[in-house]
Amino acid sequence: MPDTSRIKHTSLASKVMSSSQAAELIHDGMVVGASGFTRSGDSKAVLAALAEKAEYEHTRITLMTGASLGQGTDGALATAGAIAVRLPFQSDPVMRTIINEGGLSYIDENLSETAAHIRNGFLPPVDIAIIEAAYIEADGSIVPTTSVGNSAIFVQQARQVIVEINEAVPTGIRGIHDVYLPEDPTGRAILPITEVWQRIGQDVISCDPEKIVSIVFTNQKDSPAETAADNAAATAIARHLLHFFENEIAAGRLTRSLRPIQAGIGKIADAVLSGLAQGDFEHLTMYSEVLQDSTCRLIDSGKMDFASGSSMTLSEGCYRRVFADFEHYRHKILLRPQDITNAAEVIQRLGIIAINTALECDIYGNVNSSHIVGSHIVNGIGGSADFAQNSYLSIFVTESITKGGKISRIVPMVTHVDHSEHDVDVIVTEQGLADLRGLSPRQKAQAILSRCVHPDYQAELNSYFERACLRGGHTPHLLEEAFQLHTNLAGTGSMKTPIPESI
Amino acid sequence: MPDTSRIKHTSLASKVMSSSQAAELIHDGMVVGASGFTRSGDSKAVLAALAEKAEYEHTRITLMTGASLGQGTDGALATAGAIAVRLPFQSDPVMRTIINEGGLSYIDENLSETAAHIRNGFLPPVDIAIIEAAYIEADGSIVPTTSVGNSAIFVQQARQVIVEINEAVPTGIRGIHDVYLPEDPTGRAILPITEVWQRIGQDVISCDPEKIVSIVFTNQKDSPAETAADNAAATAIARHLLHFFENEIAAGRLTRSLRPIQAGIGKIADAVLSGLAQGDFEHLTMYSEVLQDSTCRLIDSGKMDFASGSSMTLSEGCYRRVFADFEHYRHKILLRPQDITNAAEVIQRLGIIAINTALECDIYGNVNSSHIVGSHIVNGIGGSADFAQNSYLSIFVTESITKGGKISRIVPMVTHVDHSEHDVDVIVTEQGLADLRGLSPRQKAQAILSRCVHPDYQAELNSYFERACLRGGHTPHLLEEAFQLHTNLAGTGSMKTPIPESI
Repeated sequence: MPDTSRIKHTSLASKVMSSSQAAELIHDGMVVGASGFTRSGDSKAVLAALAEKAEYEHTRITLMTGASLGQGTDGALATAGAIAVRLPFQSDPVMRTIINEGGLSYIDENLSETAAHIRNGFLPPVDIAIIEAAYIEADGSIVPTTSVGNSAIFVQQARQVIVEINEAVPTGIRGIHDVYLPEDPTGRAILPITEVWQRIGQDVISCDPEKIVSIVFTNQKDSPAETAADNAAATAIARHLLHFFENEIAAGRLTRSLRPIQAGIGKIADAVLSGLAQGDFEHLTMYSEVLQDSTCRLIDSGKMDFASGSSMTLSEGCYRRVFADFEHYRHKILLRPQDITNAAEVIQRLGIIAINTALECDIYGNVNSSHIVGSHIVNGIGGSADFAQNSYLSIFVTESITKGGKISRIVPMVTHVDHSEHDVDVIVTEQGLADLRGLSPRQKAQAILSRCVHPDYQAELNSYFERACLRGGHTPHLLEEAFQLHTNLAGTGSMKTPIPESI
Repeated sequence: MPDTSRIKHTSLASKVMSSSQAAELIHDGMVVGASGFTRSGDSKAVLAALAEKAEYEHTRITLMTGASLGQGTDGALATAGAIAVRLPFQSDPVMRTIINEGGLSYIDENLSETAAHIRNGFLPPVDIAIIEAAYIEADGSIVPTTSVGNSAIFVQQARQVIVEINEAVPTGIRGIHDVYLPEDPTGRAILPITEVWQRIGQDVISCDPEKIVSIVFTNQKDSPAETAADNAAATAIARHLLHFFENEIAAGRLTRSLRPIQAGIGKIADAVLSGLAQGDFEHLTMYSEVLQDSTCRLIDSGKMDFASGSSMTLSEGCYRRVFADFEHYRHKILLRPQDITNAAEVIQRLGIIAINTALECDIYGNVNSSHIVGSHIVNGIGGSADFAQNSYLSIFVTESITKGGKISRIVPMVTHVDHSEHDVDVIVTEQGLADLRGLSPRQKAQAILSRCVHPDYQAELNSYFERACLRGGHTPHLLEEAFQLHTNLAGTGSMKTPIPESI
């Protein structure tokens, strides 16, 4: 039996229905705005029911979310042909394949921008919102769960709202959200955040109860974050980075509290952040997108005072620990809309240290975060550019090689640029750290080649750079062989240049 | 005889000296911060004297400015071997050649960032500042001339200051500057500009008179801006853009005042802006880097109410007209430091329409603003990314071909990415306008291919896209021929694929 005490606006109790009944409200051609950010606080029942419905009844929608969904939902929807357009982010392997086949239109956006694009009319209007909630307040307001993402703008703009009340989330979660809807972004409002812990909004999503057309009950945890296995490369990267921070402190540019930290999703970034717990730091803070296991470890260790994000994406163990002792965490974390966590204005003002993962870097410091061999998308740009462009320090971490050495993550020229060299200050691999600040392109190449490259690719990359310099240029390249490593890979399964057989 | 009434701090009169005497204060290895932004308000005597000195006495400096210098100064300095490091922008053809030969280190920076990089200690400390002034106030404060650029941060940070008083600039220029030095950018200050005309600083550059070690008198106009010849392509681009604005107004997304405009330097952008004078617009405003002839034409026509920039770079005729009737213009223009004109926070808050010139665009909407064949720099990124990343609408304009058709400006893949597809909303050539908002990469390619490409390159670019799609991917590419047009150019002097000789 659903716990109808979670519907404090009592007349809304009549809107309770099954997920398949709710899915009937979603029609072909609609624009749906669903909660969910990095697999947290997402729709667990209605979108799944929509995928089932689409199997037998043509229903093809535009699906907007905060970021990625869990539960295999994106894959099920894409397989059922239910998605015409998907934005602004996804990370489902099945949907990824369909995107790369051209089977649906994926608008891979900076995560800060979707709310503004909806408000400005650059994207189509939202027909229906699907929002996971802990409960519904007496005035119809929605108490979100483990993410805020774009939920507030979806509720504000949608004609109709479906609420999924998830009984797996304690009602005590109320109070960790700070929901702020800026005025028209083409208007004149200052975003008044000057401290990571500062509240500028309200702790619920306002919603006209007339808009709520359906309430569906669920009792299902978020898809757990993958936990990072012990990884020698990640440990080495963390060590190089800690050493760098120590030098910055010695130079007087940072204090032992560093600056508010943003860390991208991914095992390496998470491991690096955990590494901070080993260092001699105090009163750390975080102003990030996603609060991960590492955030909890830093809070538990007493090193971190406060963490602001748009979602909590935790492993099962950490999820249980946080909700079992929520009173301990509730004054140390805050979840905001993603156009606030990722706002250029706030990121610049707070002087964020941004730590993101690169898929590949080139010798001049350009970074590819999203595309394999320039063509096939992995996930998307996410919030990485929001932070890289506006941070005090923009750091990219990556292993120097992958696939047992068949792929070098440092290449002559990246096959897709998500972050130009202007937005990359530091590159770290397990081999070492290249500090690119105040360097010209040729100097950047020397730093990256001497610090970050795996020995197996050293000779080939050095040779490329030296021969390119002979031809000249501010950023010397040999266009006819800039992608030679990638075409080797396509031909032989390895970037290594085949050694000609001797006679 | 120098007009010493321009030195209101009378004891400073003893510091008057010749430019060659002033150049003696600059020693090998020093870091020099000089005024000057897009050839306006630059040092006309002391840097020229330094170039002469360096011909016979080894003097190799780091030279920071606002942006480009006029008078051939950069070329003379580079030729004399006087420059070890140059930042953040230059546009001198002689210096460009030396940069591309690797003869000096050029740090091509986003123009918004240099002041913060100096303050943060990411760049070396400034030893000596050289600032062009209209006059010196009784308290030592400096009244700048036709640009502000980075002058205020240079004066604040330098140990010594050389002032060049330019008698060609009327003292009545005082009042058009708004000099604001933000607190430590890693701190917590809100940049409180909410309207283009808003003043937040003071109208002079504060300077401890003890720091002023030299005053040099000059009487020399700024290097004039090149005037745009009648250009059919620029006219067609302007026509497409006006049509687009009309559609945006009809859709309710813009009003007849549009939004504050930023326009990059260059004949096309200037011509496009002039084209606005033909449209049915009113109460236009500008929040840009450079105020050009087109700005004055819009003000003269009554269409533009106010223009904020960091410099005035005018043709000789326009320069004379403005200074002859300065009372008319002084309440309609404002010059600010470049970290304020180009601040992400303000650009987002005001909802700027940014119009910049592309060197080349690719079929997916990535833009190269700076490098020929990926290697050779032309000028630099300037402020284009500051605006493209943060504007309400980011528009890039370019002719579809150049060099008599030997070069297509639309290519399969740009050889250098200054602006990723995420920061490009609209691309306009004389062929047409591609509105890329809300499109996936394949849809962007279809829009650009069908609207922007020159007929001479249509078949080849279509073929590339179609064959790439067959191979698959979210952003389909054929890496082995992505730069075929560029290698054709290197081989034959034309991007056109040579037609095989028939038998």
